[in-house]
Amino acid sequence: MQLDQATPEQLRQWESQLDAEYQGFLAQKLNLDLTRGKPSAEQLSLSDALDGILKGNYIAADGTDTRNYGGLDGLPEAKQLGANLLGVAASDILVGGNSSLTLMFQVMLAAHQFGLKDSASAWKNEGEVSFICPVPGYDRHYTVCAQLGIKMINVAMTANGPDMDAVEALVKADKSIKGIWCVPKYSNPTGVVYSDETVDRIAALGKIAGDNFRVFWDNAYGVHDLIDNAPVLASILEATRRHNTEDSVIQFASTSKITHAGAGVAFVAASAANQAGIKKFLNTCTIGPDKVNQIRHTRFLPDNAALLAHMKKHAALLNPRFEAVLSALSGAFDGTDLGYWEKPVGGYFVSFDTRKGCAQETVRLAAEAGVKLTPAGATYPYGKDAEDRNIRIAPSVPTVPEVVAAMKVFVTCVKLASVRKQLAS
Amino acid sequence: MQLDQATPEQLRQWESQLDAEYQGFLAQKLNLDLTRGKPSAEQLSLSDALDGILKGNYIAADGTDTRNYGGLDGLPEAKQLGANLLGVAASDILVGGNSSLTLMFQVMLAAHQFGLKDSASAWKNEGEVSFICPVPGYDRHYTVCAQLGIKMINVAMTANGPDMDAVEALVKADKSIKGIWCVPKYSNPTGVVYSDETVDRIAALGKIAGDNFRVFWDNAYGVHDLIDNAPVLASILEATRRHNTEDSVIQFASTSKITHAGAGVAFVAASAANQAGIKKFLNTCTIGPDKVNQIRHTRFLPDNAALLAHMKKHAALLNPRFEAVLSALSGAFDGTDLGYWEKPVGGYFVSFDTRKGCAQETVRLAAEAGVKLTPAGATYPYGKDAEDRNIRIAPSVPTVPEVVAAMKVFVTCVKLASVRKQLAS
Repeated sequence: MQLDQATPEQLRQWESQLDAEYQGFLAQKLNLDLTRGKPSAEQLSLSDALDGILKGNYIAADGTDTRNYGGLDGLPEAKQLGANLLGVAASDILVGGNSSLTLMFQVMLAAHQFGLKDSASAWKNEGEVSFICPVPGYDRHYTVCAQLGIKMINVAMTANGPDMDAVEALVKADKSIKGIWCVPKYSNPTGVVYSDETVDRIAALGKIAGDNFRVFWDNAYGVHDLIDNAPVLASILEATRRHNTEDSVIQFASTSKITHAGAGVAFVAASAANQAGIKKFLNTCTIGPDKVNQIRHTRFLPDNAALLAHMKKHAALLNPRFEAVLSALSGAFDGTDLGYWEKPVGGYFVSFDTRKGCAQETVRLAAEAGVKLTPAGATYPYGKDAEDRNIRIAPSVPTVPEVVAAMKVFVTCVKLASVRKQLAS
Repeated sequence: MQLDQATPEQLRQWESQLDAEYQGFLAQKLNLDLTRGKPSAEQLSLSDALDGILKGNYIAADGTDTRNYGGLDGLPEAKQLGANLLGVAASDILVGGNSSLTLMFQVMLAAHQFGLKDSASAWKNEGEVSFICPVPGYDRHYTVCAQLGIKMINVAMTANGPDMDAVEALVKADKSIKGIWCVPKYSNPTGVVYSDETVDRIAALGKIAGDNFRVFWDNAYGVHDLIDNAPVLASILEATRRHNTEDSVIQFASTSKITHAGAGVAFVAASAANQAGIKKFLNTCTIGPDKVNQIRHTRFLPDNAALLAHMKKHAALLNPRFEAVLSALSGAFDGTDLGYWEKPVGGYFVSFDTRKGCAQETVRLAAEAGVKLTPAGATYPYGKDAEDRNIRIAPSVPTVPEVVAAMKVFVTCVKLASVRKQLAS
């Protein structure tokens, strides 16, 4: 199917065939959901040994009674778990509560309102504050910026990460820009892994930006490979050390999609100066995070080998679901001009770009046929996908047959929306 | 011992006897600690059944899989646990993470910066913002205000709660006042329970204050009775309903001193309008709190009877420690003019007021003799106890013999500091 070359007659014929197919789906009264980027019950069960793992021993390796108050920055063994996730040293890590999103909010609030270095370094002192948002991206990042009144500036994602020419030009030209959101491995939603060159250029941004510029490096899927010999993300920490920009990057991770989502442990990796600023802020709003949950997690995932073995079990459950999505897309759209997508080998999403102006209609058609998709636009700041193209597909929760069934509907809806759009143009 | 009536010769004689006693303590090289308002290891062990309590069943009563994301406002059964703690209905409750201090920070941040009703209701819009702080009080409350740039205004605590004549006069006269911190039962540190009249007058403040006035009702010790037939705190919720001021009070509690400190569950009770404002804010900084820990707690404390039975076990451990403190104070100071203290029957603290200008010196003397006390002034905003009188005694962690030994040193230090001060005056 090549719409750009098709005659109106050809288009009308396709429309009629596709509509018949679509009516067939309507008749089936499906109820399928590709919206939620969360683990399935089967995946969650992989970590059910967490409850009861302590067997009465609540004491950490350094003698800390995890049941009592304190420990603002986390147990040593929990720091090591965070270090394993982020590929840094335990001393680079602060341990948070159950949510890396909360840590990101707190660090951005601290940087904006109170200053990570001192009160003079607070972004709010400099008037308008902007952040670069590679698009499509993660809606919760946008919500944090919106809440703090931080203006969001879109930059396109490529197969190698954000368009770095555009990023560098913006940072050079606009001093209101205080940072950039990054999901560097299996990016949400496109699934790409930032190339070594991209990582290096992001680490170098601190040289052209002001002192208070901070890359928010949300490495949410750092160990979430679907295949053996998965791509390796270059170390942003090492890159910042080469460029002498260590304060310009703050890294985040959590166990949310490793153990129990929402009942895990979150981590931030930062330079000594940033750690001091973050801890000063955290000390005003908590006595400390849940250390009992920290020690549960360190007993469950005592070293890197245990972590990687555990992630292989997730991959075994996720892989067939991703294959169902990708083979449906290939089968329907290879050699056509109907859409573009990456082929992620990790993470939680497949991102599909329709032809211009077809995403909302595709989502609407799918919803009517009983297949729930994330609202078009959700992957853009302010919910505005100017070209109305991007749709995020999250296949982790449905069963494989459900993913197969939902993708049949999806590809038909993409085709139908595209053909109708072309007919109307 | 009555210093005001003593002759210089008498004072010199006492000083010499007390100094000899003090030198004896110095020789013992003690190492005792009365600073930390936290549970002892024995108390923490009362809740060790929490780990393993789920026995593989992570599903809440309403079918929610607690292992997955979501549930911003908490499981129904966790709301009921919060309702049991605060004496309200489950529908009044939002469930937070492991820290009521974090919830208090978040609610105060939301009220100050973003507005609980809408952005127009944010306190920051009104210029200077002040908060009433009954003194002595809880230093972490002051830290929250200080971080947000909120000016703190002291009001004296009485045996019935804050001096309400002073509070009402301030609220009437000063529109910058946006609220008051309250620890209404076993107040930190004086241990008093607010009288019914005080509760009623606090609930009525909303009628004389502006729309955005909020009482922060930190009911941290609501079920932490040391005796049977403990005093009953009047319901602030019912009082606000009588006065039609329901939006003016926000209540907080947690299980931190019930189960494992720092690994518990926190709660906020608020009107529907306040709940909406709080949830709107929370939605920008978290996907939701740890529901697995919620369900652990609800299985461990399934109803009010279980909760009260559990608290009796805490009381059995705490009571001898409080008795050791109170009998030492009575033995040393009854009938003297050397100090004033309440006799709390719950909570975590005994608060002792020395004669004017003797608190810092008492703490210094005790420290040199190996007895660590909370720094004088810590119980006041900005760390400033203008009369230098208040000392907070926290006896929960040391053993009873340790409390007895520490109190011997304490009373000698109070006497010595007082006599020397009188001699110098």
